[in-house]
This record gives sequence, structure tokens and C-alpha cells, in this order.
Amino acid sequence: MTKPRQTFSCSERMLRACRGEPVDRPPVWLMRQAGRYLPEYRQLREGVPFLDSCRNVEHAVELSLQPLRLVGTEAVILFSDIFVPMLGTGVDLDFQPGPVIAEPIRTEAQVARLRLPDPRESVPFVFDALRALRAELAPQAIPLIGFAGAPFTLAAYLVEGRGDPKNSFPVFRRAMYRNPEFLRALLARLTELTITYLNAQIDAGAQVVQLFDTWSGILGVADYREWVLPVHREIASKLDRRRAPLILYVRDGAHVLDEMIEAGADVLSVDWRVDLGAAARRVGARASLQGNLDPHALVAPRDYLFEAVRALAAAAAPARGHILNLGHGCLPDTPVEGVRSFIEAAKSLGA
Amino acid sequence: MTKPRQTFSCSERMLRACRGEPVDRPPVWLMRQAGRYLPEYRQLREGVPFLDSCRNVEHAVELSLQPLRLVGTEAVILFSDIFVPMLGTGVDLDFQPGPVIAEPIRTEAQVARLRLPDPRESVPFVFDALRALRAELAPQAIPLIGFAGAPFTLAAYLVEGRGDPKNSFPVFRRAMYRNPEFLRALLARLTELTITYLNAQIDAGAQVVQLFDTWSGILGVADYREWVLPVHREIASKLDRRRAPLILYVRDGAHVLDEMIEAGADVLSVDWRVDLGAAARRVGARASLQGNLDPHALVAPRDYLFEAVRALAAAAAPARGHILNLGHGCLPDTPVEGVRSFIEAAKSLGA
Repeated sequence: MTKPRQTFSCSERMLRACRGEPVDRPPVWLMRQAGRYLPEYRQLREGVPFLDSCRNVEHAVELSLQPLRLVGTEAVILFSDIFVPMLGTGVDLDFQPGPVIAEPIRTEAQVARLRLPDPRESVPFVFDALRALRAELAPQAIPLIGFAGAPFTLAAYLVEGRGDPKNSFPVFRRAMYRNPEFLRALLARLTELTITYLNAQIDAGAQVVQLFDTWSGILGVADYREWVLPVHREIASKLDRRRAPLILYVRDGAHVLDEMIEAGADVLSVDWRVDLGAAARRVGARASLQGNLDPHALVAPRDYLFEAVRALAAAAAPARGHILNLGHGCLPDTPVEGVRSFIEAAKSLGA
Repeated sequence: MTKPRQTFSCSERMLRACRGEPVDRPPVWLMRQAGRYLPEYRQLREGVPFLDSCRNVEHAVELSLQPLRLVGTEAVILFSDIFVPMLGTGVDLDFQPGPVIAEPIRTEAQVARLRLPDPRESVPFVFDALRALRAELAPQAIPLIGFAGAPFTLAAYLVEGRGDPKNSFPVFRRAMYRNPEFLRALLARLTELTITYLNAQIDAGAQVVQLFDTWSGILGVADYREWVLPVHREIASKLDRRRAPLILYVRDGAHVLDEMIEAGADVLSVDWRVDLGAAARRVGARASLQGNLDPHALVAPRDYLFEAVRALAAAAAPARGHILNLGHGCLPDTPVEGVRSFIEAAKSLGA
């Protein structure tokens, strides 16, 4: 990667890094950057049910912008939740705070009854918030990121009924062996929904979109190839990626990096378990990488974080591009100082 | 791997497979084989607190033998818990049912106060049960497996105070960044305890010992090399392995297979995420492999399980030896028929 001497706006740097074009230094943002580690976030959310915060456009815009103003991130991601697009489907959904499905989906008949309304009509507040954010951010040349949960992850909750305390989703995973046709039908519907939802976000101003697959890493390689890769490929092929590159995040996916590459996304976002140097050599010119500081490391001293950021950027060099980020979401009780140090360290790489 | 035409006793087959000597077919047992999926287990445990079942030698022996009699496993592992050796250390410990530590260990002073009594005196029932099991099993030539939890996994609970519902152990993991000297001291004490405990099990008749590292797979590769590999190496080097080979299990360790190899154990037990064929090619003559059916797959039809077992055995062929097992513990509501099919499928490989 040659380092041009010119500097870039945050939007240019982000989009060029996604597409593997030369940049002066990696851009930086944090997964779950709008979050419980910020006192200002907790204040704004106090007493407001989670979905109300998503539905209230002014609220969602303010929550989305907080990290830009308070800790200096270089991209803004919409404040929302992966279950928001399910609101128009007829699924009875609650947040406690994780998603809880009143009637888990376990039959083909239930899949057939899922409605797939146009998300611009069922959840218009998502697109209103994106348009408002883009209007706010465009003059500052700060990039706007949209997102969706991956179908496999949505399906895990929909079939199980809720997050499983042991992260094992036994009902869902057994459906793979007992009732594969049902699961294939459910994944197909969710894939359709995800593609429509992300393209509508791009229409509303998202300049990058990220697909969050929190749970597909629980599968072995062969099952991942069967159940997950085709879904990711379909999504990657049907998004309007000339307008917005796609970032694919798979938590706990160190063992399926080759399959992540095959999905054809622009950027692979890898968790902290992945050796970034080894991943960069494997990915090479085929994708950019995003990541992957251990979120727990944000409690470390400032010097440690500066050194860790330098090491991540150096390790990622063999990949065509790199976006600095955490390896998973920022934790609720993370010290704000740690977040600031991480971001300052990233910005210092250009000096 | 050449296949001798002779047949072996279960003990011979197991020990030869561990050491990479030719066998007629892989031996088979199940992690957590004494467990809640057996109605007879639930009946015997009903109303008996978990630790009482461990402490009562007759009870522990009966629970250990159930899978041999009921589903035909080819090895017996002692019914116990990874926290049993902590009983003599002064740590106030409860099971609800996971371990709950009244005063989590978070300072070097607390580490210094940990007692390391001779486990033969602090938890004599473990060795009484092993001796009774060996007396029962020797005439049938069924091998007896002892075990211990790995220091990193014990430390995760001891520092956090209990299992973390999100499996993230934030207090423990932050100690790696904030208070590494404390954590090094704790791991050193637990390593000493583990070595004494496993060697005492070998003295009492364990013919194979397995080290269960449930949580070290949460680390990235560099952290694993720093915090886990030296501990595994020390344990591997100080066990009496001429008498009992060592199996090393790391859950969610697909990304640290090379580091597992470096530990120098006789057998690497890998979880269901690992591609067994790729792992076997990487391990080659350096270790045998154990695993790695997805425990959820035991709900699948009998034909599926026979085919899966054939595929696992074929995939493992490039490794010097193979022991058929699950990739993690057998789940509570697993159908007993599925367990039986898995074991029968393994036994049919010799035909």
C-alpha cells in the first residue's frame, strides 16, 4: 500500500479504504460506538424504551452523532437495532433488552405467514434518520454507515425465541439437522428482507453498509459453507455497491476467513481472535480488513493503546485496505478515555 | 495410518490411538458422557447437591459407569467437576449449578493466601473413586480417564466470581491489561495445583488425563501465546506421561491450533468448528486428534450420524491417531438414541 502525501476528508478516506485505494492512514470508528459507555448516551436514553429511541428520528439522530462530537470517530453509524426491520413482518417482538419473540418461528407455515412489507413504509423512521444524518454530515465530509443483521443471526433469535444464555441456540441449531427445509425457507425470506432494507438505506444516504453476523461463527466450516456463505454471496451480489461498499462482520469467524473472502464483500470485519497479519496475507488484494482490537483492551494505559494501534495498522498492511475498529462492540463500562486514546492513536498514524 | 487386522481391547485401542500407534479403528467416548441426557443419571442425582455427588465415592463411581453400561462408550471418565481441586484452597465455592465464588480473587494478596494442600488429603474422594473405578474396569480392559480444568479457565471463574452470561468475563479479561502481575501469579499457583492434581490421579489409576480449557479460546492468538501456551507446556512437561497420555481440549480454539500443537500434548481435542481434515494435515505426526461432532447433530437421523462418523474418521486419517468424540459436551436434552447411534457408528468402522 503506497502512502500518498495528500490528506483526505473522512468520507474519502473511508470509501477509499473500503475499496482498497491508497490512503494516508486507516480511518477509524467503533462498533457500537453509540453506546452505554458514554454518560451522555445513558442520560439521553434514561427512561426511554429502546424501540422508542429508534423510532424517534430526532432522538436516533442525536444518539448517532454523539460519538462524532464526544470522542471524534471518523464515521457515523445509524443508532438502531438489527431487529428493527422485523417490525413490519408480523413477528411479535420485544426488547428485554435483547430481542424476545413471543411466538418463535419453527414451522414452514409460520415462514409463509411472514410479511415482507416495503421497509420504507413499515419502518420509515430508519430512512428519515439516515436522510437527516446525511444532511448533517455531508458538509463535514463525515461518512454515514447503515447496517443490517445477517439472516443467520436474525434466524437464530427468531427460531430460539431469544438470545440463549449459553450462546448455543439449541432449538435453532437442531433445526438444521431436523428440519432443514424450514430453515432454508426462513433464511430465504430474511435474505430478501435484508437486501431490500440495505438498498433502501443506500437510497436514503448510507455511504457504506455493514452486515452484522453475530452468530454464524458458531458453525463448523462445512455447515457455514452450506448455510451462511450462499446468503452472504446473494446479499453481496444484490446490493447497490457502486454507491455503497459492503462490510461483512462475522463474530468468532477466525475459522471461516476463507469463506468470508468468498462472499465477495468489499471489507471483512474480523473479531479480536483473528491474527490480523495472517488474515491480511490471506486476503491480499481480494478485500480490505476492518478491526480488530479486543474491546477489553480499552482499559489499558494510553501508551499500550498507541502501540496496539500501530501494531494493528502494520499487521494489516498486506491487505488492500484497512479500517481501524474494535473486534466486537464497545462494552458498557469502557472508560471514555480509552476510546479517545484509541481514536487519537489512529489519527496519529498519519503524522 | 496402516490398519492392523488384529483387534484390540478398549484400553489398548485408546492408549495406542493417543500415542499414534496403529489401531483397527478409532476408539469412542463422549465429553460429559455422564450427564443429564440419561434418565438414569437424572434419577440418581435427583435431590442430591452436585458436590455431594462428587464427594460420595459410591455415587460418583456409579455415575461414571452409567454411560459404559447404558450406551456402550469405550472409555470411562471420572464423574467430577473442574472446581473440585479448589475445595482445599480456602476459596469459598458454591455451585448454582455453575461455580460461584463468594469472594472473587482479584489481588496478589489473595493469591498469596491460596492454600495448595495435597489433593490426596483435601479431596481424597477423587482418588478413592478412581481406584474403585480402575478395579472395576481393569478386568474388562476399559480405559479410565482422569481430568482437570485448565488454569486459564479456573482463573476466569475465580476472578470474575462466576460464569459470565455473555461468556465474556470482563473483569477477568481486563485484569490482563490492568493487573498482569496478579494474573500471572494466580495462573502460576493454579498450574502448580493442576500438575499435582493430575499426577495424583495418574497414581490412583487414571490411564489417560484430559485438560479442559473451556475459555482460553476467547483470546486472540498473541494473547493466547502469552497467557495460555506456557501454562499448557508446563503441564505437559510435568505430568507422568509415560503412564498416562495427555489430551488437551480447547473450546473455540480453531484459531490457535498451531499453539495447541506447540503445547506438546499427546492428543488435541478440537471443537466442532474445526475442519478436522485441515487440522489433521497440519498436525500430522505431531499429535493425535480427538473429536469433533457438533453435539447438536445427535438429534439427526441414524443414517446421518453413521455418515458423519465415517466422514470424521476419514478426515482425521492424516493425523497420527484419532479418538472419536463430540466437539463439546453432550447437551442435557440429547436423545439417548442419538448417542447410541454415534457410538455404534464408531464401532462399525472396524467391520
